[in-house]
Amino acid sequence: MITEKKKGTLSIVKIGGNIVDNPEALEAFLNDFHQLKGNKLLVHGGGVMASKMAKQLGIETKMLNGRRITDEETLKVVTMVYAGWGNKSIVASLQKIGCNAIGLSGADANTIPAIRRSPVPIDFGFAGDPDPDKTNIAFISQLIESGITPVFCAITHDGNGSLLNTNADTIAYTIAAACSEIYQTTLHYCFEKEGVLRDINDPDSLIAMMTREEYEAYKQQGIIADGMIPKLDNSFKAMINGVSQVIILHAKNLLSGKGTVLG
Amino acid sequence: MITEKKKGTLSIVKIGGNIVDNPEALEAFLNDFHQLKGNKLLVHGGGVMASKMAKQLGIETKMLNGRRITDEETLKVVTMVYAGWGNKSIVASLQKIGCNAIGLSGADANTIPAIRRSPVPIDFGFAGDPDPDKTNIAFISQLIESGITPVFCAITHDGNGSLLNTNADTIAYTIAAACSEIYQTTLHYCFEKEGVLRDINDPDSLIAMMTREEYEAYKQQGIIADGMIPKLDNSFKAMINGVSQVIILHAKNLLSGKGTVLG
Repeated sequence: MITEKKKGTLSIVKIGGNIVDNPEALEAFLNDFHQLKGNKLLVHGGGVMASKMAKQLGIETKMLNGRRITDEETLKVVTMVYAGWGNKSIVASLQKIGCNAIGLSGADANTIPAIRRSPVPIDFGFAGDPDPDKTNIAFISQLIESGITPVFCAITHDGNGSLLNTNADTIAYTIAAACSEIYQTTLHYCFEKEGVLRDINDPDSLIAMMTREEYEAYKQQGIIADGMIPKLDNSFKAMINGVSQVIILHAKNLLSGKGTVLG
Repeated sequence: MITEKKKGTLSIVKIGGNIVDNPEALEAFLNDFHQLKGNKLLVHGGGVMASKMAKQLGIETKMLNGRRITDEETLKVVTMVYAGWGNKSIVASLQKIGCNAIGLSGADANTIPAIRRSPVPIDFGFAGDPDPDKTNIAFISQLIESGITPVFCAITHDGNGSLLNTNADTIAYTIAAACSEIYQTTLHYCFEKEGVLRDINDPDSLIAMMTREEYEAYKQQGIIADGMIPKLDNSFKAMINGVSQVIILHAKNLLSGKGTVLG
């Protein structure tokens, strides 16, 4: 970490496929995102739209541990939906409100090279695992310093001609960890809950702050389970890799920052 | 035209939807494109794939004078196909052979703002007409000067949140005309014929060179007709707007430059 050379702050915000598929919620969110002070970067999912499109095309959606199994046909669908309609709709909406956005996949300018996941023990097909050390922070920061806001979809590439489907939380973690070398970075994971909850059915049971030790204890007690585990694993990995702050919060609370702050 | 400030040469190459839909022809073409000397920029169509995808989704393709009528559903399809699968597959293939490509729509970094075409006399729906004077040459040249090769799909935006379907020949003309302000620009229109032919069924009847006056005469004689007319109108418009050379040629002849040279 070359702290003395850091160029300023950078907020990396990740939104999930639920909000991308909901025009009103997306518009409200993008307005808030545009109001965030300082440098910023958006990462979006699109799983809900991809599953709908696959269904319309008669392609079966196969999920395992919350991850999509991406055969050749499915790779085409997710690339069309994530890098095409989803990404460009967000970019056009941001341009409308005066945010000079650029939509990117990890193949573009080789921003996020990835390695195709081993088919053993589970063959996820065209699924990519990126590496923060290989991420093209020079180009990402060139955009940011030009006043341009990068908008990343969850597609990477293997450098050998194949596009790869990549978890959007992982993309956000990868960019945040990589950019921490030159920016003081905050990572916001937006989703459809208020944050990490003690009781998943009670929005008032928000855990406002959580350390790594508390997370391990909650996991052992079964209070934190399922989909929250990969998100929190990515979050703590981001902090180990130099990200200053990680917040898990409802998309509607982006500006207030109310959610679960990890520390 | 500020000739004294020109930064060097720029080759703008346009390929059509036929080649984008043919993996072997596309691979051969991209290898040739990569070998072009100097700065370069690619514009691609994708109409063949879009019509196939529309059919798979049960959406009727409506064409008029060779142009797609783009209702809301069709806009989604063309954005998925052009900006998603088509554009990102080309970028990944170029990255594989060492060409540092970036895929862009006209919405990205507001590179190509457009005006939605008037519904009178014909309502083409979400169809956009771009203006070379509004094109973001500062950003395009920033990419080129960084050693990055822009790859444009045929999608623009209206600045008011709508994406717009735009003819790929027109995108190529627009970028070429705009970039002529700072580069000595050559425009290559690649398609599936050897160039402009005296007899459309005889590849040996190539017109190797053609002036504007000759073009007008050929048109009057009915030797040049149909789809060649908008392509040649764009070509001569490009030359009036400062493009140094326009060549109409078969994609396989990109490196030899054999085709119809306009002058």
